[in-house]
Amino acid sequence: MHERNGRRLGVWLVGARGAISTCLAYGLSGLRQGRLEPIGIATAGPAFAGLPLADFDELYLGGHDVVRASSTASDLVRHGILPPDLVAAGAGDAALFEARIRPGVLDGPDVGLAELDPESSRLGAASQREQIARIAADLAEFRRAHALDRVIVVCLASTEAWREGLPSWARLDDLDQALDADQADLPASSLYAYAAFTSGAPFVNFTPNKGSDPAALRQLARRAGLPHCGSDGKTGETLLKTALAPMFHKRALRVLAWQGYNMLGNKDGEALADPVRREAKRRNKDEALRAILRDPRLHTQVGIDFVPSLHDWKTAWDFVHFEGFLGARMSLQLTWQGSDSALAAPLVLDLVRLADLAAARGEAGEMEHTACYFKSPLSGSTPVEHDFHVQFERLLAYAAGARNET
Amino acid sequence: MHERNGRRLGVWLVGARGAISTCLAYGLSGLRQGRLEPIGIATAGPAFAGLPLADFDELYLGGHDVVRASSTASDLVRHGILPPDLVAAGAGDAALFEARIRPGVLDGPDVGLAELDPESSRLGAASQREQIARIAADLAEFRRAHALDRVIVVCLASTEAWREGLPSWARLDDLDQALDADQADLPASSLYAYAAFTSGAPFVNFTPNKGSDPAALRQLARRAGLPHCGSDGKTGETLLKTALAPMFHKRALRVLAWQGYNMLGNKDGEALADPVRREAKRRNKDEALRAILRDPRLHTQVGIDFVPSLHDWKTAWDFVHFEGFLGARMSLQLTWQGSDSALAAPLVLDLVRLADLAAARGEAGEMEHTACYFKSPLSGSTPVEHDFHVQFERLLAYAAGARNET
Amino acid sequence: MHERNGRRLGVWLVGARGAISTCLAYGLSGLRQGRLEPIGIATAGPAFAGLPLADFDELYLGGHDVVRASSTASDLVRHGILPPDLVAAGAGDAALFEARIRPGVLDGPDVGLAELDPESSRLGAASQREQIARIAADLAEFRRAHALDRVIVVCLASTEAWREGLPSWARLDDLDQALDADQADLPASSLYAYAAFTSGAPFVNFTPNKGSDPAALRQLARRAGLPHCGSDGKTGETLLKTALAPMFHKRALRVLAWQGYNMLGNKDGEALADPVRREAKRRNKDEALRAILRDPRLHTQVGIDFVPSLHDWKTAWDFVHFEGFLGARMSLQLTWQGSDSALAAPLVLDLVRLADLAAARGEAGEMEHTACYFKSPLSGSTPVEHDFHVQFERLLAYAAGARNET
Amino acid sequence: MHERNGRRLGVWLVGARGAISTCLAYGLSGLRQGRLEPIGIATAGPAFAGLPLADFDELYLGGHDVVRASSTASDLVRHGILPPDLVAAGAGDAALFEARIRPGVLDGPDVGLAELDPESSRLGAASQREQIARIAADLAEFRRAHALDRVIVVCLASTEAWREGLPSWARLDDLDQALDADQADLPASSLYAYAAFTSGAPFVNFTPNKGSDPAALRQLARRAGLPHCGSDGKTGETLLKTALAPMFHKRALRVLAWQGYNMLGNKDGEALADPVRREAKRRNKDEALRAILRDPRLHTQVGIDFVPSLHDWKTAWDFVHFEGFLGARMSLQLTWQGSDSALAAPLVLDLVRLADLAAARGEAGEMEHTACYFKSPLSGSTPVEHDFHVQFERLLAYAAGARNET
Repeated sequence: MHERNGRRLGVWLVGARGAISTCLAYGLSGLRQGRLEPIGIATAGPAFAGLPLADFDELYLGGHDVVRASSTASDLVRHGILPPDLVAAGAGDAALFEARIRPGVLDGPDVGLAELDPESSRLGAASQREQIARIAADLAEFRRAHALDRVIVVCLASTEAWREGLPSWARLDDLDQALDADQADLPASSLYAYAAFTSGAPFVNFTPNKGSDPAALRQLARRAGLPHCGSDGKTGETLLKTALAPMFHKRALRVLAWQGYNMLGNKDGEALADPVRREAKRRNKDEALRAILRDPRLHTQVGIDFVPSLHDWKTAWDFVHFEGFLGARMSLQLTWQGSDSALAAPLVLDLVRLADLAAARGEAGEMEHTACYFKSPLSGSTPVEHDFHVQFERLLAYAAGARNET
Repeated sequence: MHERNGRRLGVWLVGARGAISTCLAYGLSGLRQGRLEPIGIATAGPAFAGLPLADFDELYLGGHDVVRASSTASDLVRHGILPPDLVAAGAGDAALFEARIRPGVLDGPDVGLAELDPESSRLGAASQREQIARIAADLAEFRRAHALDRVIVVCLASTEAWREGLPSWARLDDLDQALDADQADLPASSLYAYAAFTSGAPFVNFTPNKGSDPAALRQLARRAGLPHCGSDGKTGETLLKTALAPMFHKRALRVLAWQGYNMLGNKDGEALADPVRREAKRRNKDEALRAILRDPRLHTQVGIDFVPSLHDWKTAWDFVHFEGFLGARMSLQLTWQGSDSALAAPLVLDLVRLADLAAARGEAGEMEHTACYFKSPLSGSTPVEHDFHVQFERLLAYAAGARNET
Repeated sequence: MHERNGRRLGVWLVGARGAISTCLAYGLSGLRQGRLEPIGIATAGPAFAGLPLADFDELYLGGHDVVRASSTASDLVRHGILPPDLVAAGAGDAALFEARIRPGVLDGPDVGLAELDPESSRLGAASQREQIARIAADLAEFRRAHALDRVIVVCLASTEAWREGLPSWARLDDLDQALDADQADLPASSLYAYAAFTSGAPFVNFTPNKGSDPAALRQLARRAGLPHCGSDGKTGETLLKTALAPMFHKRALRVLAWQGYNMLGNKDGEALADPVRREAKRRNKDEALRAILRDPRLHTQVGIDFVPSLHDWKTAWDFVHFEGFLGARMSLQLTWQGSDSALAAPLVLDLVRLADLAAARGEAGEMEHTACYFKSPLSGSTPVEHDFHVQFERLLAYAAGARNET
Repeated sequence: MHERNGRRLGVWLVGARGAISTCLAYGLSGLRQGRLEPIGIATAGPAFAGLPLADFDELYLGGHDVVRASSTASDLVRHGILPPDLVAAGAGDAALFEARIRPGVLDGPDVGLAELDPESSRLGAASQREQIARIAADLAEFRRAHALDRVIVVCLASTEAWREGLPSWARLDDLDQALDADQADLPASSLYAYAAFTSGAPFVNFTPNKGSDPAALRQLARRAGLPHCGSDGKTGETLLKTALAPMFHKRALRVLAWQGYNMLGNKDGEALADPVRREAKRRNKDEALRAILRDPRLHTQVGIDFVPSLHDWKTAWDFVHFEGFLGARMSLQLTWQGSDSALAAPLVLDLVRLADLAAARGEAGEMEHTACYFKSPLSGSTPVEHDFHVQFERLLAYAAGARNET
């Protein structure tokens, strides 16, 4: 695949056969071959020059999935996302990646769904302790087989059914006891986080799933001295909202209503057609706006609909009704048409590089400087910030600080 | 009109019978009567608390215009901009303001246009020195009659025909010589700036006109120890652009094309139907985008069309075509529907208060901290910044500094 | 109110204090005074010249409502729908109309709601036979008091909770038996239709309510020799859909998905925030598209959300995803921003005039030629047609036929 | 390429290396191989069943072009228009078509442009009589070589510079005299029409070019007993306008302004960046709206901008400002995103089949029943009709008539 030069960084993708992973694999291959420019990858820009970030050449992909059928590259070509020549040139790399995908663990409510990897289904019968052990074993084998210096685990799995947190998730000791009794009832995403932290791997949660969010897991990360970040990649409509809503606030204009209608047709869209799964995503989308506009009277709704023909092309219409001076009522409409996976993949590359850097610098706990990448950023000591511009300034400040210390 | 309390600040509006002035007059009246909330007025917000800004009660309106017919309040009511009850309650204040409007000076190319105030037409025959003197005399009389502590001159006139600067505008001595020879050929907006500075009045240029931009006038301001700012109020589509374009840059997405189509139907729109007048506005609108995106390949066009039925409702459609990772082509569309005058009026109030504060603090020259209010901000020593969020941070920093010194 | 000239036609509005009725009353007043042009009134156009349609001068308004508070004209002024001068000039006519409004009957599920007319609440306790009798008595008194030649009953009430039809509604004899036993459980809209038919009045159902749709009521209309029409006025987004969808079908383009998102903020919007009420409206909106496009694979969804700040300004965004030759995927987006009441009122005037004409011509049963006015047109012998252009051709053909026979 | 079955119909494409021709060639190949459904081809639908229309198997492609470089299929694949597998499967057919392309004649103002076929440049020096003869010779050779029963000439060339008609174009005798004196100064499109008619070939003008529009050429067609049609294929935004504007007219709503902004990035877009070429297209687009709405006060503007990154994806935004009852001002916005070539190609197939049918039926002159295919339909005895729905009814009536006579 590529020469041994300097470091070897493993990137373990949970949801390795999904569209984001496919875009990531072909994109990485294209970057190495000089066929692609690093568009969408902020850490490849001048503001991050001089930092000891991993080269694209140093990344090794592997991952878990619970389905056998990959998001086919030809589909992504037909929908104008992957260029045909990139797919042809990346076939070798893609095959190597495919060979490193292992059967994943299932989220409880998904047990019994169609099209599952039989091995994943079998794993579903094991205790959560056993499932964690299985994940950890796969990570260890990945590290060993490729002589990796470090592995980053990235959760890109489908949206899990939303559920309230359990009391046992609040402290690590309680969680461990619950796991021993097989009563922890963690979502699969948190099993991965647990396994990552006990395997010495930083964890990136790009989904709205719980992942490393429960307090017990945050404790575990801190105890293991590992950085982690999440949740829910800010790729499209929410990015737009958090970049634009501050304008209304700064101009002292009163937003009366902000309605957002999202349509998407990929697997994520199919999962979100289920109201229980949609719930987490809606909460994340809603929260940012309220935090930025700080007006309790704000009327806001977020719709997410599955429109199969759109495939990976997320289309969102936002209607902003606002009041100006004299009570005059004005409006702004936004229509966003973007490929969800092509937007997400470069952010994952950024986060992998930043997680690796944080680990190298010995930082543990929530990577607060990555807030600009998430709809619902994990925060440790400081309050959660949603204004994209403020978030980005923090990232730049972090980069400047890291450069000075280097 | 209102009680003498503390200070008395004169606000001299050039273009006093236009729609912005009408909105300003009724709006100010409504603010004093407690009928309106200060929506759209950033300086009324918490970030500016504790600063010695003028109260709305302390403002006295007067102005110049070259036409006799006011933008009628009833038109603005019919188009849903002014509330009918506000107009009824503000009739007294409006009449007092109307009584203080004096015939203005004409921009050269406009001499001979229909519907002009005959006195303005007569003035057009005088030398530019005489015209400046006439403006100064009106300002002096305004100050005297109302015992004003300070007067701020605000240019809200129609867009002037675009013209290249003359060599004599580059140095104050040369300009004075040219004025003596009646060969300065200044646009009317610059005559107002000249008269303001020689009358001890700060100058706010809310239009794309030259105003205080020529170097000779900047020199005059500095010599007179007066602050000034401009040009071209950032009310709608450009505000949106400068708030949103940074998002693309920060995310390392490549904007391929940004097309903006503006439609408006008020007097400003009518003026802009003339390509020579439209030129300055287009330049200002274009410049910001190029500065923020820093990509020489960017394809961008700005259209401005006069659509009479829209009246004051500026409607703009922007189409942003951008490239993400893998070369995938995505798009964002924006439709902005706002009342130009209701958006502009509160910004004028902000700028009047900030100009008064700067004068009180003894600041002379370009008010760089007001860049967030302008499409083409006047800058002194620092480079021009177009990113709205950075501009606003500077304003906040200025406010914080001023508060600490107070 | 106006002189006795020729005929006197009563227009009895159910929902007389709603926004449509308010617009209708002021609009009619403006038409009579020559203050308004008949915009939006197709029957005032050349295609209907020479037909014995009622003059605007010949119409007398009265009606029922279950609430005491009128949709205030001042609200409609503030939102840019009613012109202030029209309201001033129409105050006298409006007062006369208000004096002729009687307490209406409540739809069963609404009994107990707040803000109801106490008399309407009392009526709710009576048997449905008694309620019908009460409506008929009000109609008789209206006819007598103003010496009317004919009365047309128009249902403009709020959307009723959706319910399945009962077996007893299928035949008039069964319905009468059920009414005798007070077990008919008719929605209020059908009580009005029943009372209209037994009072010799044609019935226009502008709402998605059942009205005269149940077979028993259709029988009653036919037996009484009276014309009727409905259901659900086609004012905005559905009008657009039925005017545009035929284009795709005629061009043999395959519509993959047609998503419609409707937002509205008036009383109708508030009622539709209730999923049980929304149901009927969604069905009507969905049905037309499927009928026109005739493709079982069509993916279509209709959202209706209550956004209070929009007041009467219905805003709808439609996204049409379609496939062209070569499998290329294309799209059309539509944003409709219209005042629901100002769109509806002229259609009601058209329908009143057409119902009067049909009655004068002795036509009984479903007025199939009015299909272009309805989302879910009542049809008798011929299949329901949804293509707006075909519907309109039928109306023109009817007009031509009626003109020739006259 | 395909078996001799029944008839052999030649399709001679002027502009054979453009994107429409490329789509047509691959599309036809896909239809024959059963890889494509006839989406976008109205004549393949049930309304045209039973008519003796040419089978897709019976069509043979050839053509002229003035450039050597084809619109590459790979570009159309990358932009999501041509499916990659269709291109692979159609490579053989495409090569056969390419081999039958001959150097075309240049429109006068284009002589000297870069990238031209040298042979086309040489031809530019010949007299127009000689150029016509050369075209006719190419047509004769095409017919002979493939033993074709009939040839249809279709103009798909770039938009020519707009010019006023000359007096000599008004009568055939005058035109012939002018050609003899080499002073006819016909645009290239009319040379093709002349050559087609003298070669016994029907002519389809899919461009805004003059083609067979001048009266002298119409005379020639009639004398030759040949059918022809044009001008300017109604593929996208104008199709939408003529399908939708009738709705406003029928509903008696007053359209105040209809602004249309078109952006496109293909060769046609590049040509239209030249104002002289854009002129014809703008006229055609404007005319339809005025004809349908019949309101002299209508304010309408059409913008056409070249945005290279859009390639073949025509993106148009229309803003319709209209007045309803009570003077309420409402709006409709439309955003159309379609592949110009994928929309045009199936219409060309329809027109070829209809021209062949008309010729077989012995019809001469303007094919008025094809008005629904054109922005500026050629009409003979009847007035031009622009309403898409009325146009389509005429086409159906023609089809029904032809079926009955068959």
